[in-house]
Amino acid sequence: MRNLKITLAYDGSAFHGWQIQPGFRTVQETVEHCLHKILGHAVRVTASGRTDAGVHALGQVINFRTPSKIPEEGLLKALNSLFPHDLSARDVSEVDPDFHARKMALSKKYVYVIDTSRIRSPFLSRYVFHLPGALDVHAMRRSIEMLNGEQDFSSFMGAGSSVKTTVRKILATGIFERDSRVFFYIQGSGFLRHMVRNIVGTLIQVGRSMLAPEDMERILALKDRTHAGPTAPPQGLYLVDVYYEEENPVCAKQD
Amino acid sequence: MRNLKITLAYDGSAFHGWQIQPGFRTVQETVEHCLHKILGHAVRVTASGRTDAGVHALGQVINFRTPSKIPEEGLLKALNSLFPHDLSARDVSEVDPDFHARKMALSKKYVYVIDTSRIRSPFLSRYVFHLPGALDVHAMRRSIEMLNGEQDFSSFMGAGSSVKTTVRKILATGIFERDSRVFFYIQGSGFLRHMVRNIVGTLIQVGRSMLAPEDMERILALKDRTHAGPTAPPQGLYLVDVYYEEENPVCAKQD
Repeated sequence: MRNLKITLAYDGSAFHGWQIQPGFRTVQETVEHCLHKILGHAVRVTASGRTDAGVHALGQVINFRTPSKIPEEGLLKALNSLFPHDLSARDVSEVDPDFHARKMALSKKYVYVIDTSRIRSPFLSRYVFHLPGALDVHAMRRSIEMLNGEQDFSSFMGAGSSVKTTVRKILATGIFERDSRVFFYIQGSGFLRHMVRNIVGTLIQVGRSMLAPEDMERILALKDRTHAGPTAPPQGLYLVDVYYEEENPVCAKQD
Repeated sequence: MRNLKITLAYDGSAFHGWQIQPGFRTVQETVEHCLHKILGHAVRVTASGRTDAGVHALGQVINFRTPSKIPEEGLLKALNSLFPHDLSARDVSEVDPDFHARKMALSKKYVYVIDTSRIRSPFLSRYVFHLPGALDVHAMRRSIEMLNGEQDFSSFMGAGSSVKTTVRKILATGIFERDSRVFFYIQGSGFLRHMVRNIVGTLIQVGRSMLAPEDMERILALKDRTHAGPTAPPQGLYLVDVYYEEENPVCAKQD
């Protein structure tokens, strides 16, 4: 059996998230259906992690096992001709038999995009969070730095989640502004449910001076979801990269 | 009666073009419906020209008459709160009683975007024409220059069109490449049906060396649609600007 790794990009707008849910269009179901058609056998893929409904991916990583001898390049082309317009395979490669897209991920990088322009662009409603009005990016940057390192992020965990530990390690964060858009990025060993969107919702309150930059530290210490800001909407969020052993482990600072 | 001018931007993907057609979702119908709701009377708007199904606009201009005393800024806000996510009003201003969005347009500028990357982006399928493989942009540029000036463009007129004259004046053209995307722009006194898309279809044949740059001149002289290239698809086309008296009459060269 070969173990194949695929890097996927998708526009999450019309998907009900990554994970299979009967009766809904999900990325996993679409990918498995197309692989089944190409390879001639049922396939169950493992992703680096789920993405919620409306959340996008530029570099989601999956793997699966197959007895098929199809060349990597042939599978890449076949997938891209079968995939719907909002899903693409960026890369296919054969990997070690023990590679596991979720368990072996060292870290993941997310980007969140806020559009602060007064009038929303009709082209971006599915791709950014439109929030008219200036944000204090300098204050947000000070706040973001408090997220770095190994910490308990339970204040930013969405309800209904059960995990062994709420401690995660943040490796890199940053924020930059281009035209009227604010880009926030965060790279970490792992993320709790809605963690990035809850952090963004809190950062927006900092950017609007409803919270002080230092409140981020206080909120983290409280370990209580009710003290953090609201969950930012999914359409601004992108899973950008998943990092594995021997692949640029920490992204360069971009701000 | 006041004469109001509105500049609109829209994502043409989910509209059946500009013009009202019973049973179809069109931009005109959406705009008139929202204006009616806000102003309390039926409104018939005049656009600078139609756009086809799937074609986008960054700066479509319309005008209409109303007895309403609503301030311009108030109407702008009301429209943007009523409009669907794929339509925005960029500007509202009161203009001279004799202003007419179509008759008084001196020129219009269109941009066409071709994405030449090997793997299509799942985010751009509605916004660019994906055409993998290199294009000879230098040859295309030489070809484009032959479009300038006052000429008979009947070789590039779509079927089923009846116009008094097929002569149009092209004021500016250009092409530039950024990353793996090729941007073609054209500004002219007016455009025949499908003219820009037929020109782009021909330019692509030049870019792929199926036609020589000089063939553009030959095709123009033939005045016969069958000699030009195929019609490029609508999703790469943007109506960018409409120019009126005393407003930057010719755009700056961008290539």
